[in-house]
Amino acid sequence: MEWYFVAALLTILTSSQVGILTTLSQSNGGYKYDYATVPFLAEAFKLAVSGLLLWRECQNSSPRRMTTEWKSVRLYPIPSIIYLIHNNVQFATLTYVDTSTYQIMGNLKIVTTGILFRLFLQRKLSYLQWMAIVLLAIGTTTSQVKGCGESSCESLFSAPIQGYMLGILSACLSASAGVYTEFLMKKNNDSFDMDALLSYITNFQVDSHNHKVHADILFGVIFNMARLILDDFTGGFENGPWWQRLLNGYSITTWLVVLNLGSTGLLVSWLMKYADNIVKVYSTSMAMLLTMVLSIYLFNFKPTLQLFLGIIICMMSLHMYFAPPSMLVDLPSTEKSASENLNEVYVERRTDS
Amino acid sequence: MEWYFVAALLTILTSSQVGILTTLSQSNGGYKYDYATVPFLAEAFKLAVSGLLLWRECQNSSPRRMTTEWKSVRLYPIPSIIYLIHNNVQFATLTYVDTSTYQIMGNLKIVTTGILFRLFLQRKLSYLQWMAIVLLAIGTTTSQVKGCGESSCESLFSAPIQGYMLGILSACLSASAGVYTEFLMKKNNDSFDMDALLSYITNFQVDSHNHKVHADILFGVIFNMARLILDDFTGGFENGPWWQRLLNGYSITTWLVVLNLGSTGLLVSWLMKYADNIVKVYSTSMAMLLTMVLSIYLFNFKPTLQLFLGIIICMMSLHMYFAPPSMLVDLPSTEKSASENLNEVYVERRTDS
Repeated sequence: MEWYFVAALLTILTSSQVGILTTLSQSNGGYKYDYATVPFLAEAFKLAVSGLLLWRECQNSSPRRMTTEWKSVRLYPIPSIIYLIHNNVQFATLTYVDTSTYQIMGNLKIVTTGILFRLFLQRKLSYLQWMAIVLLAIGTTTSQVKGCGESSCESLFSAPIQGYMLGILSACLSASAGVYTEFLMKKNNDSFDMDALLSYITNFQVDSHNHKVHADILFGVIFNMARLILDDFTGGFENGPWWQRLLNGYSITTWLVVLNLGSTGLLVSWLMKYADNIVKVYSTSMAMLLTMVLSIYLFNFKPTLQLFLGIIICMMSLHMYFAPPSMLVDLPSTEKSASENLNEVYVERRTDS
Repeated sequence: MEWYFVAALLTILTSSQVGILTTLSQSNGGYKYDYATVPFLAEAFKLAVSGLLLWRECQNSSPRRMTTEWKSVRLYPIPSIIYLIHNNVQFATLTYVDTSTYQIMGNLKIVTTGILFRLFLQRKLSYLQWMAIVLLAIGTTTSQVKGCGESSCESLFSAPIQGYMLGILSACLSASAGVYTEFLMKKNNDSFDMDALLSYITNFQVDSHNHKVHADILFGVIFNMARLILDDFTGGFENGPWWQRLLNGYSITTWLVVLNLGSTGLLVSWLMKYADNIVKVYSTSMAMLLTMVLSIYLFNFKPTLQLFLGIIICMMSLHMYFAPPSMLVDLPSTEKSASENLNEVYVERRTDS
């Protein structure tokens, strides 16, 4: 519980910086560097850090058994492939709806994560927890409602039906990647192993406890490199091959973006060791709200009523989801002993599942 | 429980019509009639209807005992006096804040009602029920957030501190009038009686079961008449005394407004017989949201995202407050018997208070 909390807090703090640093790295409202190189370098950073951690771990422990079974290995690129499809659905959605509608629809991901979490990870949620999940989505949406005085009015209810369908598909894809990763990480640890493939490619002796994170990261590096190469081809090598323009226009802030994006990724992996997708969804939402609050101070954004309301709604949702049910529904009473007995029953029921 | 539900539903339906009919009764964006005469006639309508009901009741039953004790009688004008003070605080608040900020602050009333309800009526609320009350206030506020494209931008965070203090005072006053009325209505029925005063003034034989409603209404008529007379004096009798301009410019719609306002008042009194201030607050909020939804169809208002979000938030709050706690926190489980036992414990605990 303690590590779970530390990991969640660190994830919130780091990931809330990503957006802010990205904004700070702009000059005159644009990027001097190729933004596609940032995720690639972040993935490379993740691979380096986790490789280092592994290496140190292996120094202190005996090597573990490995499997090279294709049946196991082939499961690993799936999240990366889902994200790749998701990216394309994203572009398709944006041909039907505007960006603010797209952003609003993105909150559906919270609900679809809950549903897939229930369906595929067989996790039981109480009615109140379902309400909390929906409320979190409502809270993040509320904070994003366009205020008065903003130039463009969202055409949220007037987009073609295809836009909404694609938005739902996008939310499902993005949620399924997260739930699938959790499924891989929490799946019976002994049944399959990526050590062989990883050590073959990266020359690291891979610890069975950490390897799933690395497989993910490795595929992340590969897919991001593929994207850069694709950009080269679609752009007709105008700016030279990707490795030549990799660090073009990089400032200290850009490097901080890379480091931040990388550490957020590592922290989320670390968080997923102790927690689950719902905790991840809450962390992401809190990070988003923290970014918005920090932006008020850093970029002189005007505080809006909807942000304030959204924060309260999300905090209540957090309470509803994580507080012990007995604390929530017990009436203040002088019969302390009776209420305490009940608490125990509930805590037992809760920890069972 | 059944009457409670019917009364709440009727209250919601009638009071949602008030705003709509009032808008429909306007011609060229203004009122042809003196709006101050509407509440007076509505109070008179209430007095007539409740008098009729009382008269019929008295025909069927033997006359009850009466008390003329000043100690009891003097408690009755208090809600009307509180509303009078409230009206003045309202005007003072509006010198510091704009109307949309005032409207937003009005939602504080929901929270202050909960607090006063707890403090003065000694009603125990669970942590979840407190959250539900706050959430209801958040929901109604969300539905009122000014959308993009609206001309004036609310200066919600920039009003002078006096504006906020007066807003809080206003919320406390309005809540205390409601809680006080409930206190009067639910107070030990035998301890005091208004029958004497009422029958003295109205020549009705007053039933001890209904008299509290009538006392309220009677004072309503008196205070509204006082307001009309005050208007006469401040206006220097420009349009003649109030009884001459009483029905000036009245159309069928205006009469419908009067009838609607009157029946809403009677329904709320009826509701308070079965329910409490929290139910009233929920009914009022639901009526407000229903008015907003109906306005979309009737007046071609554009549906906003914030209204949609507000409705979902209020519905969830409704569930959180009224659903049996066991239903909310129980995890879906195959051990039916164990969960059912727990339900019983909770239901018992709930009904105790």
